[in-house]
Amino acid sequence: MDAFMQAALEEARLGSQEGGIPIGSVIVHQGRILGRGHNRRVQQGSAILHGEMDAFENAGRLSAQIYRECVLYTTLSPCSMCSGAILLYGIPRIIVGENQTFMGEEDWLRSRGVHVEVLQDPDCIALMHDFIASKPSLWNEDIGEPDA
Amino acid sequence: MDAFMQAALEEARLGSQEGGIPIGSVIVHQGRILGRGHNRRVQQGSAILHGEMDAFENAGRLSAQIYRECVLYTTLSPCSMCSGAILLYGIPRIIVGENQTFMGEEDWLRSRGVHVEVLQDPDCIALMHDFIASKPSLWNEDIGEPDA
Repeated sequence: MDAFMQAALEEARLGSQEGGIPIGSVIVHQGRILGRGHNRRVQQGSAILHGEMDAFENAGRLSAQIYRECVLYTTLSPCSMCSGAILLYGIPRIIVGENQTFMGEEDWLRSRGVHVEVLQDPDCIALMHDFIASKPSLWNEDIGEPDA
Repeated sequence: MDAFMQAALEEARLGSQEGGIPIGSVIVHQGRILGRGHNRRVQQGSAILHGEMDAFENAGRLSAQIYRECVLYTTLSPCSMCSGAILLYGIPRIIVGENQTFMGEEDWLRSRGVHVEVLQDPDCIALMHDFIASKPSLWNEDIGEPDA
């Protein structure tokens, strides 16, 4: 695993240690991390701070020119909200830890010209698999699904 | 203009008074506003708090069952990020103040079953028109467009 996906995974694990949803993300520009983040639903009572959104927010206000040279790393396939943010800012390339536990809007992103690479990383898969098994209601809330 | 679009427009004007981007939104459940918000890019240095996102955040954590009975009002056609949030949470219906100054992802929303109604309200149009004319660089930043 490269250093940037490792950083995203560290964010995810930090979220887990905080009692939150273990998804992390980093935004990289020319080999440097501009923003890193993890899902803050539990920690901040947030409905919008998915891991990718937290990374965007922590990167701060950037120009379109910068975004268009960035790579976004995320431990899990991005949902419609996070995919929409990726398109809003014209991020040209994303690296996804896995899409086995949740399939986001990868087809939409590709149809708009985003290069999407999926690693199916065993550590990312195991982290989400264990979380979903232990806290299914919290997970359903995070992806807008009715509770079983 | 109905009371809920009026509330969204009040949010937009509040944003303008704060020196920010004048876009507002409210989320309504069974005739009651659960969350209201406006764009906070300038005020909070935020890359993700568009008006609709701020309304989602201020509504707090809600169950999928509630979201699926809500109507979202926004003074401007929702961008890809905000449209993605609308889809994430299964909001079935949105009322849009106008789409003349910016066309968001209305086609995508409709293709996923969201009922989208556009008012082309003169007050919403005038507010955005004047803002874009006075602060074009700030507007470009907010929609991820390179500055001219």
